[in-house]
This record gives sequence, structure tokens and C-alpha cells, in this order.
Amino acid sequence: MIRITLDDLDDIALGATFLGTGGGGDPYIATLMTRRAIAANGPVTMLSLDELADDALVMSCGNLGAPTVAIEKIMGADQPPNAVLALEKHLGRPADALMAFEAGGSNSMMPIYIAAMLGRTMVDADGMGRAFPELQMVTFSVYGAPSAPMALASEHGDTTILDIGDDARAEYIARGIAIRMGARSAMAAYPMDGKTARRVAIPGTTSLCQAIGADLAQSRAQNRDPFAALIKMLAGTHYGHARVLYTGKVTDLVRETRQGYAVGQVTIAAQTGDRQRTDGPPLEIQFQNEFLAARQGSALRAIVPDLICILDSEMAQPITTERLRYGQRVTVMAVSAPPIMRTDKALAVFGPSAFGLPEAFVPVEALDEEEMRHG
Amino acid sequence: MIRITLDDLDDIALGATFLGTGGGGDPYIATLMTRRAIAANGPVTMLSLDELADDALVMSCGNLGAPTVAIEKIMGADQPPNAVLALEKHLGRPADALMAFEAGGSNSMMPIYIAAMLGRTMVDADGMGRAFPELQMVTFSVYGAPSAPMALASEHGDTTILDIGDDARAEYIARGIAIRMGARSAMAAYPMDGKTARRVAIPGTTSLCQAIGADLAQSRAQNRDPFAALIKMLAGTHYGHARVLYTGKVTDLVRETRQGYAVGQVTIAAQTGDRQRTDGPPLEIQFQNEFLAARQGSALRAIVPDLICILDSEMAQPITTERLRYGQRVTVMAVSAPPIMRTDKALAVFGPSAFGLPEAFVPVEALDEEEMRHG
Repeated sequence: MIRITLDDLDDIALGATFLGTGGGGDPYIATLMTRRAIAANGPVTMLSLDELADDALVMSCGNLGAPTVAIEKIMGADQPPNAVLALEKHLGRPADALMAFEAGGSNSMMPIYIAAMLGRTMVDADGMGRAFPELQMVTFSVYGAPSAPMALASEHGDTTILDIGDDARAEYIARGIAIRMGARSAMAAYPMDGKTARRVAIPGTTSLCQAIGADLAQSRAQNRDPFAALIKMLAGTHYGHARVLYTGKVTDLVRETRQGYAVGQVTIAAQTGDRQRTDGPPLEIQFQNEFLAARQGSALRAIVPDLICILDSEMAQPITTERLRYGQRVTVMAVSAPPIMRTDKALAVFGPSAFGLPEAFVPVEALDEEEMRHG
Repeated sequence: MIRITLDDLDDIALGATFLGTGGGGDPYIATLMTRRAIAANGPVTMLSLDELADDALVMSCGNLGAPTVAIEKIMGADQPPNAVLALEKHLGRPADALMAFEAGGSNSMMPIYIAAMLGRTMVDADGMGRAFPELQMVTFSVYGAPSAPMALASEHGDTTILDIGDDARAEYIARGIAIRMGARSAMAAYPMDGKTARRVAIPGTTSLCQAIGADLAQSRAQNRDPFAALIKMLAGTHYGHARVLYTGKVTDLVRETRQGYAVGQVTIAAQTGDRQRTDGPPLEIQFQNEFLAARQGSALRAIVPDLICILDSEMAQPITTERLRYGQRVTVMAVSAPPIMRTDKALAVFGPSAFGLPEAFVPVEALDEEEMRHG
């Protein structure tokens, strides 16, 4: 059991932006809201999955909508708590623990915010281990914990309960509601007991956000190499294999909004005379909200669900898809996803084919070995 | 208390098509489903509003979607009952009486169908007294009985519960769900007690459908003037003033699908040599699913919420908007809406301005007097 205090929030937000792999939305506003809630109501208690009672009621929560809208249309203060209250009312009992459904991006902050607002406990786990664009892309769905019943809440105090027998269909209908709630809805879903949560959730991802954020912040303060430090830190976690894929400059960027997603490709080329430069052809990264695949010439360097993160080379600040610009000096990292996200079942739900990519999944550590043999 | 048997269904369907005023969808398939349900489970008991207990739980039901889709994508047999069961479960008790929310068109049949399927009683009333395109266009909303909580069901067994604090917003969100349920959803909404139902519902509209249908069928069988007979019959109801506005031929038709509605105008011109013909310029009828306004030259002849019905002149079969064709010989009738539908409050929700018409509402009987003075 740990307590999340005001001092932890910036680290969690920074780490969540890293785990967002370009997507998940900027946690800035959610962090401000959470800061105010904790200042008013005190720290939030967070349990590990192991500390949950078998029959504890766990529900995951977060926001469903377009991150671009979130920048201009700020979430109502009562909106995320209302989704949890609606689901609690539907189930006839309060939640024993709130869980993130998406550790990457702004949704990392939502269970902390709601727990502070409602006086609930939270659990240190999530369903994505990073950011993904659709709500069925969670280990909960993969391992048989259904999204239903789900609650959505708007800023007007309106709520809906969805009892949809298939999680991809639930995403489709919930997305339709979220659109008509003004592209911003708060969600509480995937209610399960503690025993199930231990089986289907990715453990430790909120504290991992904090550890990543603290590590990056410390590197800045101590003026050490942030990438080497982060790689060393991650080696002790279930995101064990991390490496720098490439260092260079953004030399080309194609980005368009298609069906609500930011879709496109960014090209990063090594520059003659750079202190740290990478040999070989430019790195091309394909994205759909999140960075999905990194390719160098004909070689695949990393692919979803492994994490591809673009950070600015100077401050090691993770850069989201919509903030990419021509001329940015960036360092690209690849990080292995935890084993629970790499099974055949998991790859069917959020592996390369789920995004229409032609390649099969190959773990980043295997791609690295290949690179070293032939590179 | 009366019993609805197999013998009543065709009359109810025929009368409902008349009350549909061009919209509401063809009751053909719903009638077949209801026939089968009554054949299997026996007649349905229908109470009058006066027979309801003050604390009886009344809920209205019907389908929400596009009538054009309904022709090709047939409602699942369990879908309409599932909406009622979902709302009953949410409210924690079974409905004491099911009520139509729309007496016009195919939704006239839904409470009968569901009552037969689930062994429920129904009540002889509805919220539209005709057909209207949007779910907040009901006397329930007008007189303060809210749509929430509402249930929607798809053919997959999926259900949603909506708790929306404003009925126009409920229409917007429910429509979004209905679209993603494949433009066919079954709805149970506007739960209220018996005392409230007596205050906000339009009484006797299911038995009125039956009376209209029986009257038209009898005219056919007895070879009498169906229009004169119907006018005489309606004079004894709260739809008291009915008259033939025009007899002629469809000489022009502009009809397009805009935002899911059939929108346009039909022109009907008197023909030299017709047995029954109308003097004066052609009649022009503007529609949005339902017939909204009838104009002759510069004179308004009838306007929503009063009923404008187009029937074929030979068989007195009501013609829906999508079945209008060039060359049809038609008789246009106007019928006064009941007083509960003509108050200022009611006109604000489903009067001319709700459809963007420039004219203020004038009762058809006043327009008739004017016509007689100047015509």
C-alpha cells in the first residue's frame, strides 16, 4: 500500500506521457484537477493487485473522446466521478478499488482524481500498459473480463449504462455516445472482482509511471544522460528491454486527421556533426495516435504493442503525435511490452494486424539482435 | 378493459397508417410479428387511462430508427421485449401497463406485441396522437414527464440505459445509439405512474386506430363513400373536426433524403372530368417524414400538429411519404388534433416552429371557416 500525494503527480504525469507512446492525450489538465482534489481531500491510497481481496469490486475508469477536443473543452469536475457513481449505482455497491484502463497519457490520472474526489481506494494496474486508441484494446478483454456493464457520463450530468455483449461492439456504441456527448465522456467499465483483476490486469503501471517520471526528472536535475539512466531503471521492471533506436532530426512529417485519429508518418534523419548521431538510413515511424512501427530502410526496428517513444534529445521530454514538428531534435526509444501483452491472444486484439500493419509482431529484443548481426 | 385479439390487428394497422400522416413506418411487419405473438400467447388486455391505479408503473415503448431500414432489416423477435425488460430491471419492478409512445405508423403495434410476448397489460393512450420524427415530440415531455430513464435494445441482445436530464438531448444521444445499433433499436422510455399518465398522455389512441381502420374497411366492404363515413365517425372523438381538403392527381413530387429524413413537397392538382374534383389552384403539401403543411396558392389549408392525410381516392388507403408517386389519384384529408396537442406548450415542442415552418399554428377548423368566407 502506498499513498499518492501532491508531490507524486508531476512524476506520474511525465511517466504517463512516456508510456503514451505519442498518444493518450496530454495529462496537463487532468493533473491540475487531481492536484486540486488531493489538496482538498488528502492523499489517495493505492493498493497493489496482490493486496486486493478476492471478492473486492474493482472497476476501471478514464475518459473516452478525442484528445484534440480535450485541450479546448475541459472535463467537468463532476464528470469522471459521475461515471463511477452511475456504475456503482447500477451494480448496487461502491467500488473497492478504482483502476486505470489506460496507464499512458491523461487517463493515467483519472483513477487518482476520482479516488480523491469520492474517497475511494485505487489499485496499481491498468489494461493497456501504454496508450491505445480503442477501449477493447485492453488485457481485460483479451483474458475474458468483459467491458459490460459500462457507464458513460457527460458534463451535463447525463449518464448512460451500456450492457453490450461484445467489447468491440461496445467500443463502437460507446464511441457514438461519446461523440454526441461532445467528444468528451467519462467512463467507468470492466467491473471485476479482485481475483479476476490479478489475472487480467497489467500490474504496477501507475507506480511505473511515477518511477519513469522521477527518473527523467532526476536526470534533468543531475544533468546525467537521461536515456542511459532510464534504460537501466526499466531493466528492473517487466518492461525489461529498452534501448535507443535512433537520434536525429525530424526531416519529414505527414499527419492528417482521419476518422478521428491522427494518422501519418514521421521521418527522422541523423545529422552530420551531431554529438550523438545514428548511422544508416533515416528512421520512419508510422502512427495512428500512437507510434505503431519504426522502420529503417527495409528493416523493422520496433512494432506495436512494444513501445516506441519519441523524446526531445535535450530535455528527454516525451513528444506526443500532435506536437511533432519539422526540425525537432529527437531521440527514439523502443521498450519491450510486458509478457501479458505479447501472447497470441493479446496480439490478436492490439498487435500489428489490429492496426492493419503488414508485419507480424517481432519482439524488439529479437529485432535488436538481428540489427547487431547485420547492422 | 378490452381484449385485443387477432381480429383487431388489421384494423389497428390500417388506422395507425392513417394517424401516421405519411410517416411512422409501415406497420406490415410489426403486424405479422404481433399476429404470431397473440396466436401463441392469447389476446392482450388493454385498459383505459381511467382504469389505471394511481401508482401503476406505466412505460411507453416502440422502435427508434429509420423506417426505410425497417423494410429490409427486420426487428429481432426479442428486441422490443428486451428494451422493456431492461427498463424494468433498471427500475426494479415490472411494468403494470405498456403504452405506445407513437400511435401513428408501425409503433402503434409495439406495445401490443410486447404485451403479448411478455404477458403484460397495455393502456389505450400514447404521446404523439399521430406520428412525429423525434422522441421528445410527445405530450409526455410537454407536460413534464421525462424520458429518463430510457432503455434501448439491439438485435444482438445488447441494451443501454440512458439517464439524460433533457428530452431533446436524450433524442440526440438515443438517435446516435440507434444509428450504431444499425438504424433499428427498440426503446422503452418515459416511465411514469398511472396518475401522471392520465395527465400527460393522449387518451384512447389505440382504440381510435382500430375505429378508423374498421370504418375504412367497412366502407370498402359496403361500397359507401369512405371519406364521408370517416368524417362522421371522427366527429364523435377528440379528433372532432375532419374534412376533405382536396381531390386530385399527384402532378409533381420532390423528395430527398436529408439527415435521415424524407424531406420534400408533393403537388396535387384537380383534373378536368374527375368525378369528384376540387376547384382552385393545386394543393401543395410540404413533408418531413410526416405531412407538415398544406397550402393552396397563398392560402394555408392545414398545418402541424393537425393531421394531414393523403389517401388513394379509390380504396381510401392512406399513403406514406415514401410511397407517393406521380399520377396517383388521391384525396387529402385534414383532421384536428386533440386539444392536449394544441396548447402553447405543446406547439412549442411539435408545432410549426419546431419544424422550421414560417407560419404560426392555426386550427384547421379556423382555416376552413376562412376558406368558406373567401373561397
